[in-house]
Amino acid sequence: MTRPYPPRIKIVEVGPRDGLQNEARPIPAAQKIAFIDALSAAGFAEIEATSFVAPGRIPQLADAEEVMAGIHRRPGVVYSALVPNEKGLERALAARIDQANVFTAASETFNQRNIRASIAESIERFRPVVISARAAGLRVRAYVSTAFVCPYEGTIEPAAVTDVVARLLDLGVDEISIGDTIGAAVPSQIEAVLDALDGRLPLGQTALHLHDTRGTALANVLTGLRRGVAIYDTSSGGLGGCPYAPGAAGNLATEDLLYLLDGLGLETGIESSGVRRASDVIEGALGNALPSKVRRAGPAPSGERKETDRE
Amino acid sequence: MTRPYPPRIKIVEVGPRDGLQNEARPIPAAQKIAFIDALSAAGFAEIEATSFVAPGRIPQLADAEEVMAGIHRRPGVVYSALVPNEKGLERALAARIDQANVFTAASETFNQRNIRASIAESIERFRPVVISARAAGLRVRAYVSTAFVCPYEGTIEPAAVTDVVARLLDLGVDEISIGDTIGAAVPSQIEAVLDALDGRLPLGQTALHLHDTRGTALANVLTGLRRGVAIYDTSSGGLGGCPYAPGAAGNLATEDLLYLLDGLGLETGIESSGVRRASDVIEGALGNALPSKVRRAGPAPSGERKETDRE
Repeated sequence: MTRPYPPRIKIVEVGPRDGLQNEARPIPAAQKIAFIDALSAAGFAEIEATSFVAPGRIPQLADAEEVMAGIHRRPGVVYSALVPNEKGLERALAARIDQANVFTAASETFNQRNIRASIAESIERFRPVVISARAAGLRVRAYVSTAFVCPYEGTIEPAAVTDVVARLLDLGVDEISIGDTIGAAVPSQIEAVLDALDGRLPLGQTALHLHDTRGTALANVLTGLRRGVAIYDTSSGGLGGCPYAPGAAGNLATEDLLYLLDGLGLETGIESSGVRRASDVIEGALGNALPSKVRRAGPAPSGERKETDRE
Repeated sequence: MTRPYPPRIKIVEVGPRDGLQNEARPIPAAQKIAFIDALSAAGFAEIEATSFVAPGRIPQLADAEEVMAGIHRRPGVVYSALVPNEKGLERALAARIDQANVFTAASETFNQRNIRASIAESIERFRPVVISARAAGLRVRAYVSTAFVCPYEGTIEPAAVTDVVARLLDLGVDEISIGDTIGAAVPSQIEAVLDALDGRLPLGQTALHLHDTRGTALANVLTGLRRGVAIYDTSSGGLGGCPYAPGAAGNLATEDLLYLLDGLGLETGIESSGVRRASDVIEGALGNALPSKVRRAGPAPSGERKETDRE
């Protein structure tokens, strides 16, 4: 169902986790801390700071405790982390996260290959995590990966998404982030899934997690906005998708989303100058240019001469 | 006014002109000819092949006659060229173009700095071009540059666009391409201009010419589709915007638009494999990677394993 744009949008910055997890180069904890502190200063309400998966599994994020201990927590900001199992939750609680993020998929094949479990098994695996996290007073967010297109199965039926969403809601999660994990969805697929979720997943609990692999992310955001979705996941600079690598598949860049939302007059509470500084920090640490188009092109001209032009 | 998507879309390939004009490296005519022939084979109905501006002014396109003489004309394809004045039209007619493209802007400051003429002066300058071209049986297309945002003036009022469009229609042009020349527009600006043109410029004569400088081009296309616009200008591979240059400002990539339109089930008559071959030709000639995201990431997975993934 088409709706007016939501007047206020929450941008969830996932660069420190989803972004850095997909950068080949390991970054020292001190630079991750500087990055997260810069994100806090930019005005984000929620930052996914790290992951408590087994340290051997994702070496880029093996320093989760050090990062969580080092950041300056800005009052009111939710610092979340990916938590795959009960052992991870113990570590995450000791590190004082504000929110536990669990993950499954809408594609059985993807889930099997990604975490070697069926969708049902993955939900059973994190069921105790959700229960314990909520008992400890934490919010819980769930990711549904490959909700539109799967690299193995191709197009995913919306019924597969509504099915897993129903199971996650039964479990009591607070928010569900619906993912175009490989950045292959087009607006008609976003519409089909959101229409299928209409009346089942409240808009206040609905997030879209879009990758910009094929350039469709902002068109997909526009489709989400038109259906009332007010929560979007991004990474600063488009971290996680090196522009020089074939098949680069970064998150939608925070700057690019913010440019669209600012242009549409929608409130985010986030300063673009602050995002630029955060991207500067992590770009400096990585040593290669981040792919965000707005980062490279700069803001819209306000009447002051800025760039080279053509007819 | 919101409308159903047009079922059939015309993609106008402007890479050989707008793209190459903005690439620093000069390309031999033989490679331009191979590029245009590959575009013809891909199924485009209209290709902007070159420009008949004074050869000294745009050295990249000084070989217009050689290019037009060398291409293999596929029956039914419209081969157009930019024609700035009567001298250019003489050359263009001798080179047997099918359509003359003239250009002005919606921003006075941009027009002054770009072609050292007011909007009114530029229209007077190409008035005899339009009259002679039509007398010679050619179609005429007009570009309105900086129709949404100007690098000097900032946001452009829709009334400035409707004013210049009215003057162009009085002149008898067949089609008007409304340009986001510096790739700064957001969907609300596209809506405002298209709503202002509604009832003044027939949809069959309306084209959108979008640059993807800030990643908003496909969101802007989606907005155009929703308002019934069925003609879009693109360049193969996103030619004209080197991804390594700061402030890179390429046309929307043909591949990226085609990915969106194919995904939405809209007909174009263009084969994505053919576009890939055309981009291969011009990328090889330029010697550096073209920025199209779809070119780098590949097509949507159909169920066959294709790429690296993440949770």
